[in-house]
Amino acid sequence: MSTPRIVIIGAGFAGIEVARGLGRFGLKVTLIDRQNHHLFQPLLYQVATAALSPADIAEPIRKMLRREPSVEVILGEVTSIDPKARTVALGGGRSIAYDILVLATGATHGYFGHDEWEGAAPGLKTIEDARRIRSRLLLAFERAEMSEDLAEQKRLMTIAVIGGGPTGVELAGSIAELARYTLSKDFHRIRAETATVLLLEAAPRILNAFPESLAAYATRKLARLGVTVRTNSPVESIAAHKIVVGGEEIGTGLTIWAAGVSASPLARMLGVALDRAGRVAVNGDLSVQGLDGVYALGDIAVALDADGKPLPGLAQVAKQEGVYLGHALARKITRGETPKPFVFHNRGNTAIIGRHAAVFDFGWTRMRGWIAWMFWALIHVYLLVGFEHRLLVAIQWLWRYATYERGSRLIAEQETDG
Amino acid sequence: MSTPRIVIIGAGFAGIEVARGLGRFGLKVTLIDRQNHHLFQPLLYQVATAALSPADIAEPIRKMLRREPSVEVILGEVTSIDPKARTVALGGGRSIAYDILVLATGATHGYFGHDEWEGAAPGLKTIEDARRIRSRLLLAFERAEMSEDLAEQKRLMTIAVIGGGPTGVELAGSIAELARYTLSKDFHRIRAETATVLLLEAAPRILNAFPESLAAYATRKLARLGVTVRTNSPVESIAAHKIVVGGEEIGTGLTIWAAGVSASPLARMLGVALDRAGRVAVNGDLSVQGLDGVYALGDIAVALDADGKPLPGLAQVAKQEGVYLGHALARKITRGETPKPFVFHNRGNTAIIGRHAAVFDFGWTRMRGWIAWMFWALIHVYLLVGFEHRLLVAIQWLWRYATYERGSRLIAEQETDG
Repeated sequence: MSTPRIVIIGAGFAGIEVARGLGRFGLKVTLIDRQNHHLFQPLLYQVATAALSPADIAEPIRKMLRREPSVEVILGEVTSIDPKARTVALGGGRSIAYDILVLATGATHGYFGHDEWEGAAPGLKTIEDARRIRSRLLLAFERAEMSEDLAEQKRLMTIAVIGGGPTGVELAGSIAELARYTLSKDFHRIRAETATVLLLEAAPRILNAFPESLAAYATRKLARLGVTVRTNSPVESIAAHKIVVGGEEIGTGLTIWAAGVSASPLARMLGVALDRAGRVAVNGDLSVQGLDGVYALGDIAVALDADGKPLPGLAQVAKQEGVYLGHALARKITRGETPKPFVFHNRGNTAIIGRHAAVFDFGWTRMRGWIAWMFWALIHVYLLVGFEHRLLVAIQWLWRYATYERGSRLIAEQETDG
Repeated sequence: MSTPRIVIIGAGFAGIEVARGLGRFGLKVTLIDRQNHHLFQPLLYQVATAALSPADIAEPIRKMLRREPSVEVILGEVTSIDPKARTVALGGGRSIAYDILVLATGATHGYFGHDEWEGAAPGLKTIEDARRIRSRLLLAFERAEMSEDLAEQKRLMTIAVIGGGPTGVELAGSIAELARYTLSKDFHRIRAETATVLLLEAAPRILNAFPESLAAYATRKLARLGVTVRTNSPVESIAAHKIVVGGEEIGTGLTIWAAGVSASPLARMLGVALDRAGRVAVNGDLSVQGLDGVYALGDIAVALDADGKPLPGLAQVAKQEGVYLGHALARKITRGETPKPFVFHNRGNTAIIGRHAAVFDFGWTRMRGWIAWMFWALIHVYLLVGFEHRLLVAIQWLWRYATYERGSRLIAEQETDG
């Protein structure tokens, strides 16, 4: 058998591991991404809240694959996939033929059919998203400082985070800390620590994927930080300066969307049936059901665990799937081995609430509080790609832990007029 | 005498020092800037060449003035100044009255009457400028890697820096190092180390403000890094993909403008005569000639030294002027003292050529090579505002020194289509 042409789309946690795995076997691979960097998404909320710089959590894809000379990296946007002709088209008219296609383009924000909310309530998936949220967040306080109108000040200092999953909890906690410990020292006229941070969740409780005791703990901790947690509160409408929740109109300085994700639109190009969140159903070996030679993994796909339950859209799932598929494909191609199905090993589901507080759910045990925070910090420092990033991030965390400082309080020029 | 209303426009090296000086005397001051951050401009070229992150060299203005509660900071754009009515108008219709106005808004790029060159040849004055240059620089190599056409590859890998002053020398040296030591490891198809880096200077030699021996040293060092230095080469035209120099057309992947600066357009609002570079002439006490109660300093003004020669547009001049004016004004207001004229103390004029190499001119002595580089690095680490920044920047420099890495190789989304 001649070596097949392998194309991977997406260099996130899943795609980069597939490329590495195949590269280690010396197999020729083309990896396409529309960014030049791999992003450590679990820390993106820290960029959005001015605690870390974009470069701290982004690594050039080419650098990550330096030791794999058989992997060709292409910076480009995939405009269409033709599963019959087995070609991928890129912007600029270029077309790439494949024998094996690996789709790992992740997910984007989903507004439950209300795409018009996107402008007023940005989500958090890319570096640009994080920069946008950071600029708008800091600008809301700047404008409150300049306003002579008390009602306007109160509106500007009301930050609504929609969605009580880990991202929403992390954003709300981090914004409350920013206002209370950092911005409170910066402003003379307003009292930034009196800002209202709302965490709105449609379901009866936050952190749905966690045990109830951890969710209750997180709610208490958030309240102590000054976050107002409202459950059973589906948002009804979102506009530039206000939201409507349970019939009540609330004026806001900034609304952030952390409620829904929907799979990358590339899933639709495969021509197979998708689930409600737009995800591709895959077999145990992560191959797309009903499509020969195409694999999908990470947030764009929905794989099942041993009990037949769908695996959650987590970084650790994507990464483990990537490691699995890289090995499985390499062994299949080089030795003709039929791979065993993918098995997910839960390393612990986590959410960070603020300084000193986090929750961890390992399935067989749970952890919370200061010890969970330390554990979370250690793991994330370790996980961050590349030695330099690990060291710098660790130093910044320690520094902020001691001083309550945030080093990246930059407002981008283009946002100052918006 | 009742305390006068003091308004400072611009929170660069000059303005921030005036605000600090007045604040230390407890005088009420309004400081206006259109950014929320003070920028350490001498290291901006390192952001443009992916060595540092924007937040490493930017500090929130409010944080810098936390200990001066009498200083009010306003984020806003000054739209007009009325020296007769003594008011400053801000975007949004707000107007601020002053008794004393301090103008410190610096300089911007000057294209010698060719403003149409700006789009094709960005200059380097703000964080956004640096991000733009970084994205375009990295994209040029990405496009070269994807191109099948050898001539096109050569064009994309030709970077022209226009202007052989310190900024031009620093940019050219840093880009050559980036290509040779970092990008060369990232790309498989192109050989990034063969990139052409052109440094074009209209005058007979580069580093005009330095002694000839240091300029000759810099030229040799740049050549060894792979930079082609062309003197007596005024640029005749600049377009998106090419420049014309001495009648010769040269295809370029990126052109950067480091040739001319012109004073901030706010100088024109004063209604006084300006010099060729648009600068305001000031007296020995930095008051604007012919205008009562208005002071100008830093790059927007031209002060004279003891010999009647104009002082250069350097960070150290701006900073010393700011320290002087803060003290002089405070003593004048609180004690009625008439200030002695400003005297500039030369701390050494410097340009960095690359790893291991810099030049220093102290007037009474000179320094060059590795020892000058070490001296430069130490001074700049010390000067960087705020303890966290100093430490982080020092660590990054040491790390890069050992590994030739650059951590901030981010291409911004908005540039990938441009």
